[in-house]
Formats: sequence, C-alpha cells, structure tokens
Amino acid sequence: MQGSSDRIERAIEELTKLPTIGRKTAQRLALHLVKTPLDEVNALADAIVDMRKRVRHCSECGALTEQDRCAICTSERRDRHVICVVEEPGNVMAIEKTGEYRGLYHVLHGRLSPLDGIGPEDLTVDKLVERVKRLGVTEVIIATNPNVEGEATCNYVAGVLNEIGVEASTIARGVPMGSDLDLADQVTLARAIQGRSKVK
Amino acid sequence: MQGSSDRIERAIEELTKLPTIGRKTAQRLALHLVKTPLDEVNALADAIVDMRKRVRHCSECGALTEQDRCAICTSERRDRHVICVVEEPGNVMAIEKTGEYRGLYHVLHGRLSPLDGIGPEDLTVDKLVERVKRLGVTEVIIATNPNVEGEATCNYVAGVLNEIGVEASTIARGVPMGSDLDLADQVTLARAIQGRSKVK
Repeated sequence: MQGSSDRIERAIEELTKLPTIGRKTAQRLALHLVKTPLDEVNALADAIVDMRKRVRHCSECGALTEQDRCAICTSERRDRHVICVVEEPGNVMAIEKTGEYRGLYHVLHGRLSPLDGIGPEDLTVDKLVERVKRLGVTEVIIATNPNVEGEATCNYVAGVLNEIGVEASTIARGVPMGSDLDLADQVTLARAIQGRSKVK
Repeated sequence: MQGSSDRIERAIEELTKLPTIGRKTAQRLALHLVKTPLDEVNALADAIVDMRKRVRHCSECGALTEQDRCAICTSERRDRHVICVVEEPGNVMAIEKTGEYRGLYHVLHGRLSPLDGIGPEDLTVDKLVERVKRLGVTEVIIATNPNVEGEATCNYVAGVLNEIGVEASTIARGVPMGSDLDLADQVTLARAIQGRSKVK
C-alpha cells in the first residue's frame, strides 16, 4: 500500500497473529511503535523473547515457572493435601489473585473438545492421578471453565478420581458479584438456584 | 504474583504500554506468547524492531518511508499540483486505501492543541508553505480530523495559505455511508445539511 512500507506491513502482519488484535488495532500499534524511542521498542521485543525462552511448565503441576518446579509446588506454606484442577496456566494466576486458596494446582493444558479432536489422552489426567496418590490428596477442587467443554472435562476428571476413591468438588456457578439479577442469563440463574446455600 | 513469574510480569508490563492494551489483554497476549513457538515470537520481535529502525519520515512530505523520500513523492504518476494535508502518517494510509486521491500529501505531525502546549511552531506548516510555493501547487485539501482540534488546525492552515494567495478546501463532514440517519449525532447531521450538494 502507498503511504506504508514493507516493514510496516510485515510488523502489522505479525501483530495480527496475536489474539484480540485485528488489522486495525495492529496498524494502530505499528504506527505507535514507529513513533516510540528505539530503546523502548527493544525493551518490548526483549521482554517477550526472553519470557518465551525462560518460562516453562512446572514439571509437577504444569503451571508457568522459570524453574523446574514452580513457587507454589515448592512452597512449604501450601496445603499439599488439596489440589485445584484448572484448564490453563492463566487460570492459576486468576485464582491466586483471589487469595482464597492455599492448596496446590494441577493444569490440564486443555479441555475435552471432540470437535477439535482433543480427548482425555491430550490432557494431563494420568499425571493428576499419580500426584493425588503420591501426595495423599484428600480434596480435589475442579475449576474448569463454566461452559459446555469445561463441564464435560469436569465430569470426566471427577469420574477418573472417583475410580481411585477420591471425591471431587467443583467451584460454584452462580450470579456474579456486583451484577444485577435481571441481567443474569437463564442457565446461570438456574445453576445459582440449584447451588443455593443456607444463610448463616 | 504466585502462578506467574518475573519474566511474565515484565512482558505484561511492556505490553501494557501499547495503546488499546490494558492489563487483562496484556496478560492474555503474554500467556499466548508463552505457548507460541520460539521462532514465531522471534519473528514478531524482529518485525517491530526492524520496522522501528528502518522506517522514517519522508524528508519531503513527512509520510512514512524506508527511503529518504517516499514512494508517493517520487512517483511520476501523482499530480504534483495538489497537496492533501493530514495530521499523522497513518492518515495517508487511510486515504490511499480509498484510491480516490492522486495528488501529494503533507503530514503536519500533530494538531493544534493549546491544552497539550502544541502550537503552530510544532507543526510542519512552514515546510508546507515552502512546498506549495516551490511545486506551484494549485489545490490544497485539508483533511484534519473532524473534531475541535482538527477543525482549529484546518482553519489555521487555511489562513496561512490564504496569506500566500492559495485557497484551501476541506473534506466533507457528513453522515457516514451505510449508517442510519437516526443514529447520526446532531453536530454531524447539522454539518451534513450545511454541506449539502445538488443531486445530479
């Protein structure tokens, strides 16, 4: 395109590969970067490459870490008899932010999704069973996403755990805090009613 | 934060500096990049650094180019007696995409904005006047943004051009194509009525 250049087009193309970044946003980011001091552009480029090179999955739970085992798995302050099962490493960060949970994690690295050809063998369920046995885990909380695939994954994992005599729970589905009952969708509201708890 | 790492946090921090990227989007991008093959992350990093190093402003019109003068300024197919004045290099790309314009450009690299301390001396108006005289320009189209600052800039530039005996026009403000009259705001609709044209 006139008014642009090959290198701008290449940068836009690369940026468009990122999630949530469409062509227009990519162009805006590229034009911003052209105006940004070189050392700041270098800092951004270094940060993402360095992160990609150094960050890996914890050999124990599958969360993100720069060591062999993550800070949670190696912490002496965490309750090793409780495991929270999540789909992706980002979910660990979300739950940690709440400060409500003091146990360990287990990242499945995916969800059951027959349409995408993802079956149980693609998830880290075997490793979960091995950890539950080895650590003598007494409580497993399944925190997969509240959608069809997440629920299917939750049921499957719970079934596998039941076979080895371990009961699993799942986090509550209900109306989000700070929202309005009128705005809640039917499915969420139905689940909120089913999952009602006693007022203490 | 537990479940994250220093390098992830650094990448998120750098990504958050980009326009339109908030903390949540930055985290999503970072977690995506962690899962992306290293050569693809390198390709993205190289593309933005390479672009930043090689792309500069055309010494003639101020648009983006990898040469001393841009492809539009050096093209023999463009009408050298018409100049379209825009605020930013990105505007050139937007107008070129229409395929409606065959003249040259002039990038002001900003807009009059007293609140931000940006006055006429911060824009490339002197260079515009010099080009208009040197090239014997007969038509100047001012395509600043349709907002208060853009209009003020347009009026200022038109005034300067009038002093050297050159008349300037500005692009039409009106209801956008494909939209609905009921949805147009009052100011836009008022400008559309003022700028009405005969039906041929």
